[in-house]
Amino acid sequence: MSEPLKISIAGLGTVGAGTVQLLKAQSEILAARCGRNLDVVAVSAREREKDRGVDLSNITWFDDPVTMARDADADIFVELIGGSEGVAKDSCVAAMQAGRHVVTANKALIALHGAEMALAAESGGVALAYEAAVAGGIPVIKALREGLAGNRIESLHGILNGTCNYILTTMRETGRAFDDVLFEAQELGYAEADPSFDIDGVDAAHKLAILTSVSFGTEVDFDSMHVEGIRHVAAEDIEYAGEFGYRIKLLAISERTENGIQQRVHPAMVPESAPIAGVEGVFNAVVTEGDFVGTTVLEGRGAGAGPTASAVVADISDIACGRIVRTFGVPASSLSKSSPASFDDHLGAYYVRLMVDDQPGVFAEIAAVLANHKISIEGVIQRARSETQAVPVVMTTHETTEAAIQKVLAALAQLGAVRESPHMIRIENFR
Amino acid sequence: MSEPLKISIAGLGTVGAGTVQLLKAQSEILAARCGRNLDVVAVSAREREKDRGVDLSNITWFDDPVTMARDADADIFVELIGGSEGVAKDSCVAAMQAGRHVVTANKALIALHGAEMALAAESGGVALAYEAAVAGGIPVIKALREGLAGNRIESLHGILNGTCNYILTTMRETGRAFDDVLFEAQELGYAEADPSFDIDGVDAAHKLAILTSVSFGTEVDFDSMHVEGIRHVAAEDIEYAGEFGYRIKLLAISERTENGIQQRVHPAMVPESAPIAGVEGVFNAVVTEGDFVGTTVLEGRGAGAGPTASAVVADISDIACGRIVRTFGVPASSLSKSSPASFDDHLGAYYVRLMVDDQPGVFAEIAAVLANHKISIEGVIQRARSETQAVPVVMTTHETTEAAIQKVLAALAQLGAVRESPHMIRIENFR
Repeated sequence: MSEPLKISIAGLGTVGAGTVQLLKAQSEILAARCGRNLDVVAVSAREREKDRGVDLSNITWFDDPVTMARDADADIFVELIGGSEGVAKDSCVAAMQAGRHVVTANKALIALHGAEMALAAESGGVALAYEAAVAGGIPVIKALREGLAGNRIESLHGILNGTCNYILTTMRETGRAFDDVLFEAQELGYAEADPSFDIDGVDAAHKLAILTSVSFGTEVDFDSMHVEGIRHVAAEDIEYAGEFGYRIKLLAISERTENGIQQRVHPAMVPESAPIAGVEGVFNAVVTEGDFVGTTVLEGRGAGAGPTASAVVADISDIACGRIVRTFGVPASSLSKSSPASFDDHLGAYYVRLMVDDQPGVFAEIAAVLANHKISIEGVIQRARSETQAVPVVMTTHETTEAAIQKVLAALAQLGAVRESPHMIRIENFR
Repeated sequence: MSEPLKISIAGLGTVGAGTVQLLKAQSEILAARCGRNLDVVAVSAREREKDRGVDLSNITWFDDPVTMARDADADIFVELIGGSEGVAKDSCVAAMQAGRHVVTANKALIALHGAEMALAAESGGVALAYEAAVAGGIPVIKALREGLAGNRIESLHGILNGTCNYILTTMRETGRAFDDVLFEAQELGYAEADPSFDIDGVDAAHKLAILTSVSFGTEVDFDSMHVEGIRHVAAEDIEYAGEFGYRIKLLAISERTENGIQQRVHPAMVPESAPIAGVEGVFNAVVTEGDFVGTTVLEGRGAGAGPTASAVVADISDIACGRIVRTFGVPASSLSKSSPASFDDHLGAYYVRLMVDDQPGVFAEIAAVLANHKISIEGVIQRARSETQAVPVVMTTHETTEAAIQKVLAALAQLGAVRESPHMIRIENFR
């Protein structure tokens, strides 16, 4: 047996306490796998006295995580505080400057400061590992960075936010409205009191920025991404999606195009037969296309104490075994600047739902607007009839550009018979 | 840049030529990822003159792979010959004795001699890597051995043979008979001229033995496995499965039970909603249950030059980067002997199809046999009526033991009205 590996942990919320618990529960297996004991020697959190259900005796307490990162006698600093700035970032930098490896679950930190952090890791001669930052317990960073190392990744798409996927799944299964299901998700603890970070797509976008960097060898580029959440997805849209053979998912998509790298997060209709369509509830999944390996799908629990602690400990175990990987797979100085493709150039099919007055000639007007912009209609559903209320006209289009559909939506909104703003959801015809 | 990594490759069939091609095509990406060039310096195969579509100039040719393994000036010996004995094994052992790392796609070799080979790797101080031996391009060995290292794996199940999955998928989609679809698969190159290795479940069983060892830290134990292929799966069974809400897959299953480790390969009915049910055609998948991470699903192409070469190169790249992992995750000497659970004790639900004379009282006789063995019927389909031909009686049972169902099948076969041997397929109610 080698010397024990000494670990300090900052942040003892659900994931931090889960990590302490996992390291204790599996100490024998881990010692056999790593050839050394993994010992938690120091911790730091806000409230010292709080009962977290884990035994912290014989572990040195620090009130300040930055002091712990710099001064505690540890080989690895585990950052589970969260947030892209402040003590989370400062403590990681302090640890790396002191020559300690860093393991973090902090997606915002890596998504916004990844290139800078990778340089700091390399100049400190240490690892910066963040498996837990993306897709919880699924070893997707390891798969992309090591398991598919022989491939040029052409594209990837994923379900990266369990809260949104739970809401969309429940809406489909029960036919209930968004607000109603969100409220229930908050009661069950699947959504935060302030849910905007999840349901507006920001969390998924942070994770996508990281996956893009690992896959394409580019600097993280959060700013040029199109990010759209699920607030506007209505129960009717989910029902119509089913009639067209689709399911609605909040997708995170990254692809190499002729015009550069395109990253986008938005609700999308995917064919019911596509692997990603079957990923339900709080599960996450990532689908990658590599030039030699073809399609690979990774699916599992995207959040929660157990799955996230599993990913944190996988990183710790790699370091304990001496398996050090560059932050984004290649030297930080060789990461290329991302050249983002304009979202206007995105080519895709679209679903459009209009609420219209049910009067003669309405559909002809609508069809004329689409024809004027050279968009051809693939399918139409128009069923309900009413002399008093607005009725839905639902269409899917053949492939067109984002710029063209946006012009069409603006023109449709101007029609006298169209009552609400048009509802649009992008279609991704994955096989 | 460090010194180039020198590679020798034995066996230049589809996978060998694919590996040479991949290493050339991705030389820049790989050099960036590994910090050194990956150079093929020596190759060995049967026919020197054959055109394999790859440039072998400036690469030293060896007629004998064992000589190459021992004498060629290489850091890694890549074995792509196949077969559990003879030159494949001898050359791997020779390479390890000479202090060279071994990368292999040889499932039979690892399944039958894994413990012995792991000891040889450790005493040579080298890596023995075999990602390509299981599930083609899917990085499942890496996921289990590293990505889920913080978990105790409780069970796993997978679709590990693309030929069988292609045949079963096509039978379901077309309603055609097994022999007919097998013939077509042979024409298309998805099945071998002698298909028994695939369709009798041996190939899947080899892969399962390896996954079991990696997951549970036990010595590979191929001999105590129940192995059953798909020859007896009839078009009718696939149709009835659909009526009960199931799909039929050739599954490889390994689980810890009270009585020891149970490994089995057999056709099974799985609920249409289970993730594994959607894995179609030549795709493979592995579903694992870990105590902290929960369910993880990995899916991808299980065979073919590109995916297999991708896995071979992932192993090469790990070694090039200095990421050396113990063969089965723990020291070879600490692998425990597998204590196999008796298959008789297996608890499960069953599908039974009987072909019977359509006469009064037949069903009562059948029901009495089941009742006598304390097996309760869950569902029955009995539809067709005929005075001259045998008609099907199709049942699913509640949970019972393998020993009990075998006794029942023997008793049912004795009934006067039962014309053929009963058809039985196990049911796995995965969620």
